[in-house]
Amino acid sequence: MWLTDELVTIFGIDEKLNGASAQRIYDQISEKLATPEFRPRALYERFNVEVLCTTDAATDPLTYHEQIRASGWRGDIRPTFRPDNVLNLDAANWRANIDALSQVSGIQVRDYRTYIAALEQRRAFFKQLGATATDHAVLTLYTNELSQADADVIFQRALNGDATAGDAVQFSGHMLMEMARMSVEDGLVMQVHPGSFRNHNASVYQKFGADKGADIPVTIEYTRNLRPLLNKYGNDPHLTLILFTLDETTYARELAPLAGHYPAVKLGPPWWFYDSLNGMRRFFDTVMETAGIYNTVGFNDDTRAFASIPVRHDVWRRAGANWLAGLTVRHLIDEEDAAVMARALAYDLAKQSYRFSPHESK
Amino acid sequence: MWLTDELVTIFGIDEKLNGASAQRIYDQISEKLATPEFRPRALYERFNVEVLCTTDAATDPLTYHEQIRASGWRGDIRPTFRPDNVLNLDAANWRANIDALSQVSGIQVRDYRTYIAALEQRRAFFKQLGATATDHAVLTLYTNELSQADADVIFQRALNGDATAGDAVQFSGHMLMEMARMSVEDGLVMQVHPGSFRNHNASVYQKFGADKGADIPVTIEYTRNLRPLLNKYGNDPHLTLILFTLDETTYARELAPLAGHYPAVKLGPPWWFYDSLNGMRRFFDTVMETAGIYNTVGFNDDTRAFASIPVRHDVWRRAGANWLAGLTVRHLIDEEDAAVMARALAYDLAKQSYRFSPHESK
Amino acid sequence: MWLTDELVTIFGIDEKLNGASAQRIYDQISEKLATPEFRPRALYERFNVEVLCTTDAATDPLTYHEQIRASGWRGDIRPTFRPDNVLNLDAANWRANIDALSQVSGIQVRDYRTYIAALEQRRAFFKQLGATATDHAVLTLYTNELSQADADVIFQRALNGDATAGDAVQFSGHMLMEMARMSVEDGLVMQVHPGSFRNHNASVYQKFGADKGADIPVTIEYTRNLRPLLNKYGNDPHLTLILFTLDETTYARELAPLAGHYPAVKLGPPWWFYDSLNGMRRFFDTVMETAGIYNTVGFNDDTRAFASIPVRHDVWRRAGANWLAGLTVRHLIDEEDAAVMARALAYDLAKQSYRFSPHESK
Repeated sequence: MWLTDELVTIFGIDEKLNGASAQRIYDQISEKLATPEFRPRALYERFNVEVLCTTDAATDPLTYHEQIRASGWRGDIRPTFRPDNVLNLDAANWRANIDALSQVSGIQVRDYRTYIAALEQRRAFFKQLGATATDHAVLTLYTNELSQADADVIFQRALNGDATAGDAVQFSGHMLMEMARMSVEDGLVMQVHPGSFRNHNASVYQKFGADKGADIPVTIEYTRNLRPLLNKYGNDPHLTLILFTLDETTYARELAPLAGHYPAVKLGPPWWFYDSLNGMRRFFDTVMETAGIYNTVGFNDDTRAFASIPVRHDVWRRAGANWLAGLTVRHLIDEEDAAVMARALAYDLAKQSYRFSPHESK
Repeated sequence: MWLTDELVTIFGIDEKLNGASAQRIYDQISEKLATPEFRPRALYERFNVEVLCTTDAATDPLTYHEQIRASGWRGDIRPTFRPDNVLNLDAANWRANIDALSQVSGIQVRDYRTYIAALEQRRAFFKQLGATATDHAVLTLYTNELSQADADVIFQRALNGDATAGDAVQFSGHMLMEMARMSVEDGLVMQVHPGSFRNHNASVYQKFGADKGADIPVTIEYTRNLRPLLNKYGNDPHLTLILFTLDETTYARELAPLAGHYPAVKLGPPWWFYDSLNGMRRFFDTVMETAGIYNTVGFNDDTRAFASIPVRHDVWRRAGANWLAGLTVRHLIDEEDAAVMARALAYDLAKQSYRFSPHESK
Repeated sequence: MWLTDELVTIFGIDEKLNGASAQRIYDQISEKLATPEFRPRALYERFNVEVLCTTDAATDPLTYHEQIRASGWRGDIRPTFRPDNVLNLDAANWRANIDALSQVSGIQVRDYRTYIAALEQRRAFFKQLGATATDHAVLTLYTNELSQADADVIFQRALNGDATAGDAVQFSGHMLMEMARMSVEDGLVMQVHPGSFRNHNASVYQKFGADKGADIPVTIEYTRNLRPLLNKYGNDPHLTLILFTLDETTYARELAPLAGHYPAVKLGPPWWFYDSLNGMRRFFDTVMETAGIYNTVGFNDDTRAFASIPVRHDVWRRAGANWLAGLTVRHLIDEEDAAVMARALAYDLAKQSYRFSPHESK
């Protein structure tokens, strides 16, 4: 679907893609991409994008964001605060990342207290450049608050290169709670994307590096793992915690009940393998009866394929409209409500949930 | 669905419910509820209920049941034996509950033997007041038989306030098997409702107490956990063991095969979050090919919302009829069988499975 | 469906089967089965079967296979190498099975090295009689390579009757990897059927023995468990590893992503409880968007009911054609591709995946 729609709608190619036509189509695309109409900013405007958020390490100086802002271009490009590589003690190069954090924040990280201060400095800087959200990728969810003293003991071990696997679990579980606390304070929407076993294929990882398409989902547990965080912050009206999943069994069993109960919890749209027509249908089927649409955030895609943005939103809008039409013809909702819900799913919910108000725009 | 149907059918209100109409509709409902036609017994008769079962602690003296029987009213209201608060050693106030059990049974519970005797006395008393079933809510299923001696050692520790978490697991696992043994002997149908993490939201629990809507499902395992119980009692024609779930993944994987194999096992209808149109469709889809309808118990709702009873049964009947119609038009079953199956799903199976015979009626 | 179709199509009985007609129909079937037209070879030809594979223990001398070959009959009957009873140290009679392995292979198994040699001898012998595949049934998947020395230590303990439960897990996990290595070398397609808790009902097992219908599925985990095997052999073009499941939650979460990523991995069709109309619909729904049909193997049934073969394939073909028709009318694929895909699902994929080429036929 995506590819056909991109070829036809974006590139004006309606020849069927197969072995015989592949080279011809490749050449046509290359030709188009070399023209000014296919430069990223031109496409951004053609796609009528209102806002595009990048994902950036906590240690990123956001130079390009500053350049875009300085360029005078009207496009609304914002960073997203993703601190995985300084929160997970077992991240590759964690020690070097901490040094980078010191440098970029101007705060010498030498203990837990200065580490927290540096993270808060970065969040403020991201916010200043338009960020409205954070993002956290974890393999298994685990939350558990440590005392400041215990957190510092682990942090010192990590600085000395002596942290154990158990330390990493405890520390990440604690830092997710710290991220929720900071979100309550600074208003950044907190997103969690758990359950992807990264770099599953060791040869691909050795030859080509991280994130090359060899990530395979695992089961994930939300009910018990999120309880410490939700018991402390889940009832707080200042927090928006958006949960994603790669384990669809959690939609009806755990996620919809959690989103239905806790004021802070909202469900992200079908993600990755489930950002698809069937994935969306199953999401509507298993989530909405319990959670309702207003505990979801509508649709945001996390594509790395820029030209797929319009079709991905189009698929979601059609899937949502089709679901609402089914409810309407069976008289489970009426046409008046269906129209409001269609717009909410397609547009309003995402804008509200991620706190993109005109007031916050540049 | 439920709310609209209740408003229209029960209360005669067909104005659409929304922010503008809410106060007006609230007032109309209050007015209706104050009239004699909306007293519980009047609604029971209007709803054409044949039997209504309450859920009662093992320590409940069933005073109201005796009063209803003494009142001469024709309604068939029966108790259900739910001994969670004396079976789970880690139940709040377990020690006080044991004292209450001694008092209400007239048997001084001082060791495992007298404890069993008191439980058997209560079952007999419940049965005398019309009970045909027991109900057991457990977080995780675990069954394992202890020797009488080992059970007594744990029980004595619990009486002295020294029981460990491990003791509680072992004892509950043993007592589920004892409950199956007693059911084989006294004929009470045994129901198990596992997998709800109760009182998930600590603030709600502290402010408002137990069971206030903050219960979130967890995964549940039946195949391994129920094996000890099923190996001892699962082939016994005297036992009916009705299993419910909040983890739909178990329908096709574990529950339908277990119900298809063991003579004692039957599946309860979609429960709680799944007592819904989609929940029922998924139940029919994933259970029936393997288990067949005659290993299910049709429909019983466990509502606390009295006025929702008619619509909940109506939704089930329509969902069942719709499923059967789909099988019929595709010629997987014929019209003759469909008619019998529709009645079985709507009425006969529940009555038979819960052993409500005219003979047992008051 | 199966039974009705078998009665009508194979036995020419179109009277409806129920309590009243059962004895009459039983008699008619018995009468038919006594005629020459209903002998196995006649049915094989009538069913137009191209190839039928049996499942045989590693210790099986394959006498009947040699007899069929010697008989001059044109039917293509092949063995499949299933070594569970010599690979799993906790298999009933494992020690006796090893003696049988020595005898049948002509290699005196006295240590790990001779054990491997005997297994390789058997695989070569199976292959000589037409085998193109192996089959492995395990309760839980676990793969982990041991050094030859460590494998030998465990093997010696097992020969002496001293192997522990932990030894059995380690050894099976190692031997699954050895089987993959041998498949890379000899080209036998490797099938894994995990997740069935065998002989769940102890009384049935004691009275009637193994595999009498009391097998209940359990959850299964592929992502982490298969990683050691896939990291060593998953990218090897010589290996075809066909995975089956009794836990449908793994289709979208683990199996489709694994099959989509690793060149060696293909998904087997819906198996056992899921070899059904609904099971197939859910398979198409949850697998194909991520894996695509060319990472599946089309359909093979594993029936023990010979007369069910035609209808089982017919159900699959109709289910597949119905799914493709749905994609076609919604313009997700076109008619040209649908026709190719229908044939691939029904016929080509199974033949290619299991490496049945005319060249290999007798």
